Amino acid sequence: MYKQISSLQNPLIKQCILLSEKARERKKLDLFVIEGQRETELALKGGYRLTTVLFCSEIISEEELYSIKKQASSETEFIEITSEVYEKIAYRSSTEGIFAIAQTKDVSLEGLQFKSKNPLLLVAEAPEKPGNIGALFRTADAANLDAVIIANPKTDLYNPNIIRSSVGGVFTNQIATGSSFEIISYLKKHDISIYSAILQDSVAYHSCNFTLASALVVGTEATGLSQEWRDKSTQNICIPMQGEIDSMNVSVAAGILIFEAKRQRGFN
Amino acid sequence: MYKQISSLQNPLIKQCILLSEKARERKKLDLFVIEGQRETELALKGGYRLTTVLFCSEIISEEELYSIKKQASSETEFIEITSEVYEKIAYRSSTEGIFAIAQTKDVSLEGLQFKSKNPLLLVAEAPEKPGNIGALFRTADAANLDAVIIANPKTDLYNPNIIRSSVGGVFTNQIATGSSFEIISYLKKHDISIYSAILQDSVAYHSCNFTLASALVVGTEATGLSQEWRDKSTQNICIPMQGEIDSMNVSVAAGILIFEAKRQRGFN
Repeated sequence: MYKQISSLQNPLIKQCILLSEKARERKKLDLFVIEGQRETELALKGGYRLTTVLFCSEIISEEELYSIKKQASSETEFIEITSEVYEKIAYRSSTEGIFAIAQTKDVSLEGLQFKSKNPLLLVAEAPEKPGNIGALFRTADAANLDAVIIANPKTDLYNPNIIRSSVGGVFTNQIATGSSFEIISYLKKHDISIYSAILQDSVAYHSCNFTLASALVVGTEATGLSQEWRDKSTQNICIPMQGEIDSMNVSVAAGILIFEAKRQRGFN
Repeated sequence: MYKQISSLQNPLIKQCILLSEKARERKKLDLFVIEGQRETELALKGGYRLTTVLFCSEIISEEELYSIKKQASSETEFIEITSEVYEKIAYRSSTEGIFAIAQTKDVSLEGLQFKSKNPLLLVAEAPEKPGNIGALFRTADAANLDAVIIANPKTDLYNPNIIRSSVGGVFTNQIATGSSFEIISYLKKHDISIYSAILQDSVAYHSCNFTLASALVVGTEATGLSQEWRDKSTQNICIPMQGEIDSMNVSVAAGILIFEAKRQRGFN
């Protein structure tokens, strides 16, 4: 009933491996791979189109597969693979039994549509570590932010480690990317206040009013935000640091800022 | 002028490797290893006693070494090692040039001494991933918490990955460990309110008053807090989750709770 693949040499399997490992391949084909049932379901819910679903019937149940089939487009091809093939392409080889190829989405600033009249956005400039980027998406999902914007991206969004560490949050958030210059212009044009996490000339974050349209902007742990964000920010903000180390994980810092804004907005 | 080691077979070098790799060895000898200049200085500042400092003069400068020497006890032995030996024992082999053996500290609850009259504590039950534990210490340092208490520890505090991911925060915080039962008894005895991060029968975290003596208690991402913490908490608290994923990184969640308490206390 299903097409079957049992050979590690099958061209589609080779392509899965390339898409997992090479950002260049993802970019060239506008495709990426998703591993795991929950992640696949979140991608479908987030409006991603799957071209192919590879499943290993020794691992995934009929019922779980049906749940995904029902949500997928009729154009999605379902292919059964052996556990040997599955182990070759999957990272979490024993637990999930499902591996999808999906089309990337438009991540232009112009494509953003805000849920609320006074949107709350997170902007992260040049984050590099997939684990940190994933954690940002996960926190942004929890806060139901209007969008996450990555400035001057260094790592492609569909890196499997970002998908994994975001627990699927890369699919549930509205995401855009652009240069810092483009993003600043966009925010100014849309009357969104820019709160840049920068020590110089800053006020403590909790003294700011984040209830109007606001973008919380964080830089990297190593170098902070670039000069553009200093020059163009509505207000520089800082989290008072009272310890010996004087540095904080970027995803923790973003979480503190985001949830202070949520608190001020009464979690509405 | 310094004793020198150039052999990879030297018993001290073998011990360094064992102390890096084996929790059992650390426990048996009450010793652990520290890599890096900043981490070593933070350990000294935090009152840790170094038995031995191994340095590679091809990497560390005279001045940097002197800065550490001046803070160390007169009983600390300084030994020069070759870059080959250094590379064998060090994880970040090219950058630091210093590797210390240190004595573990008392981490009993009875040893805790609070800086403030209304202490603010973080309790983490059974955290397992060194990266998460390190991030908790780092955030706790930034907030200058009175103490971090690890309940039912699963990973030893002096795991090199914890030291590394805490950026030395494992040395700058007051730390205690104990069973959940012991910690609850301790908190009750000292009239410290217990705010357990548990969904059931909870109120939103920001509606609580954290200005009196408070312990913020977080569980693991996988299983949450154990029944004891549900039964004995002063108030269960939750962070309102408004996304699709319904889970948050434990160090981000702890950061949000801790800094809401700090905000309420006016960062005093």
